[in-house]
Amino acid sequence: MTVIYEKVALIGLGLIASSLAHAMKRGGLADEIVGTTRSKETRDIATSLGFCDRIEETAIAAVKDADLVILCVPVGAMAKIAAEIAPHLKVGATVSDVGSVKQAIIDAVSPHIPEGVHFVPAHPLAGTEHSGPASGFAELFDNRWCIMTPLPNQSLDAANQLEQFWRGVGSNVERMDPAHHDLVLAVTSHAPHLIAYTMVGVADDLERVTEKEVINFSAAGFRDFTRIAASDPTMWRDVFLNNKEATLEILGRFTEELFDLQRAIRRGDGDQLHEYFTRTRAIRRDILEAGQDTKEANFGRE
Amino acid sequence: MTVIYEKVALIGLGLIASSLAHAMKRGGLADEIVGTTRSKETRDIATSLGFCDRIEETAIAAVKDADLVILCVPVGAMAKIAAEIAPHLKVGATVSDVGSVKQAIIDAVSPHIPEGVHFVPAHPLAGTEHSGPASGFAELFDNRWCIMTPLPNQSLDAANQLEQFWRGVGSNVERMDPAHHDLVLAVTSHAPHLIAYTMVGVADDLERVTEKEVINFSAAGFRDFTRIAASDPTMWRDVFLNNKEATLEILGRFTEELFDLQRAIRRGDGDQLHEYFTRTRAIRRDILEAGQDTKEANFGRE
Repeated sequence: MTVIYEKVALIGLGLIASSLAHAMKRGGLADEIVGTTRSKETRDIATSLGFCDRIEETAIAAVKDADLVILCVPVGAMAKIAAEIAPHLKVGATVSDVGSVKQAIIDAVSPHIPEGVHFVPAHPLAGTEHSGPASGFAELFDNRWCIMTPLPNQSLDAANQLEQFWRGVGSNVERMDPAHHDLVLAVTSHAPHLIAYTMVGVADDLERVTEKEVINFSAAGFRDFTRIAASDPTMWRDVFLNNKEATLEILGRFTEELFDLQRAIRRGDGDQLHEYFTRTRAIRRDILEAGQDTKEANFGRE
Repeated sequence: MTVIYEKVALIGLGLIASSLAHAMKRGGLADEIVGTTRSKETRDIATSLGFCDRIEETAIAAVKDADLVILCVPVGAMAKIAAEIAPHLKVGATVSDVGSVKQAIIDAVSPHIPEGVHFVPAHPLAGTEHSGPASGFAELFDNRWCIMTPLPNQSLDAANQLEQFWRGVGSNVERMDPAHHDLVLAVTSHAPHLIAYTMVGVADDLERVTEKEVINFSAAGFRDFTRIAASDPTMWRDVFLNNKEATLEILGRFTEELFDLQRAIRRGDGDQLHEYFTRTRAIRRDILEAGQDTKEANFGRE
């Protein structure tokens, strides 16, 4: 139980913020956790759940005297919040975020950060398909990765302290250039999400297959797509709008490759298909070995 | 414990066959379960695991006196096996299969079925990403769907008995026209699998993102794709080669829709994206309500 920041302010009270609060309590990482969000209803739920020591009505009140302020709002809302809280930040405080894109957030938030305040962007690669304050839990970040993209002109001490904090909530930490982060995430997250959303939309649209059939027979593989495509719409809209270039680049590669496999199917080239499917199987094995998923079989797929 | 078939022969001893054997024992559905497969190594493993009462070296020996013969081999191997066992089938026996496509199997197997033997095609929508005789378990079919595509010229009694058998191993059962089955599965299974294989292949191929990065940061959504893309390469090669038209049709629809969303990203049309993502979220809810997945959050996604 080592306190890393005396007072931590969470702006936004969704899945990530509430999980952070639970994990901070578990690790004893903060003396006081203050939370805030725009919606009164969400504040009331958070109050009744009690994962924050205090819930404030405004971001301005929440950041008062805070040593660490974490922006846990959709990417598109970051700039406005940053502008709003900027004049009220304590000298020496660290501002961070949990956004899924980094360069766009740096561009949006940095101009507002006052002298004497450190801005250290971060992105925990953790989450579930659920959202809201009741969906959080302390173990969310355990053995997951948090990617930090500290800026070259910022304090190294502030970055080191934030790294200690993320390790305290259970994460592994890696530092990366923001543009490279955005490319890596386009591959491992943003393109797969758009693809899953698309496939689920296609199934929903197909008149010759009933919705009941899609639902009952989803165990055959489609089900995993629907889980991904159940993620928060606002968050994902903002991700795609703020990581356009990398996402579109990866989708371009994806389509190219898909066309090639479609052609192999059309021509009946079984060897090409078999070779491709064998190669992709090996990646799965490496992910299991890296501890980023469990070996336990996922039921009901064929 | 009601015996439905006195003697059941399983041709092939992979995930589905071994799970069927476990489930038959659990339900007491057969007096004797005989298994066989080409590979001596697999036969030895199956012998040591003991889920069959007897393991035979040849399919011909296995089907002798069997009341139900289930072909549990890749789609591409069905015709050859059917031709091989045909002269040795007992009069009155039922031959079935567990293949993921139906019309192509009917075309391949039907011509070999002798007079007095019933051929009732079936497809259990159950499986995991694991394969082989050691991956089977009795609960695999519980509350999953088995789609039967009985032929109009075949005995209704034989189909009803097979339905009773599938219900006995825990499945729900639906009957369907073979062509419609192939279209439904193209949507809920075949297209999603090809898409997952493709995306995993793209990630593996991208020089600017290291394999270590792909693996470590897979929790962000990609991981579910790798699970799907870890399925048996031979089985899936055969599925695509034998359900070409429906798969290519669905992939065409998918690409069309994907291009539309890509254009929305390029133009910054947040409303279109948000609306699309909200619609797909509803399908997930319906799948949970239908009991085809658990509500339990899948860790580590963002």
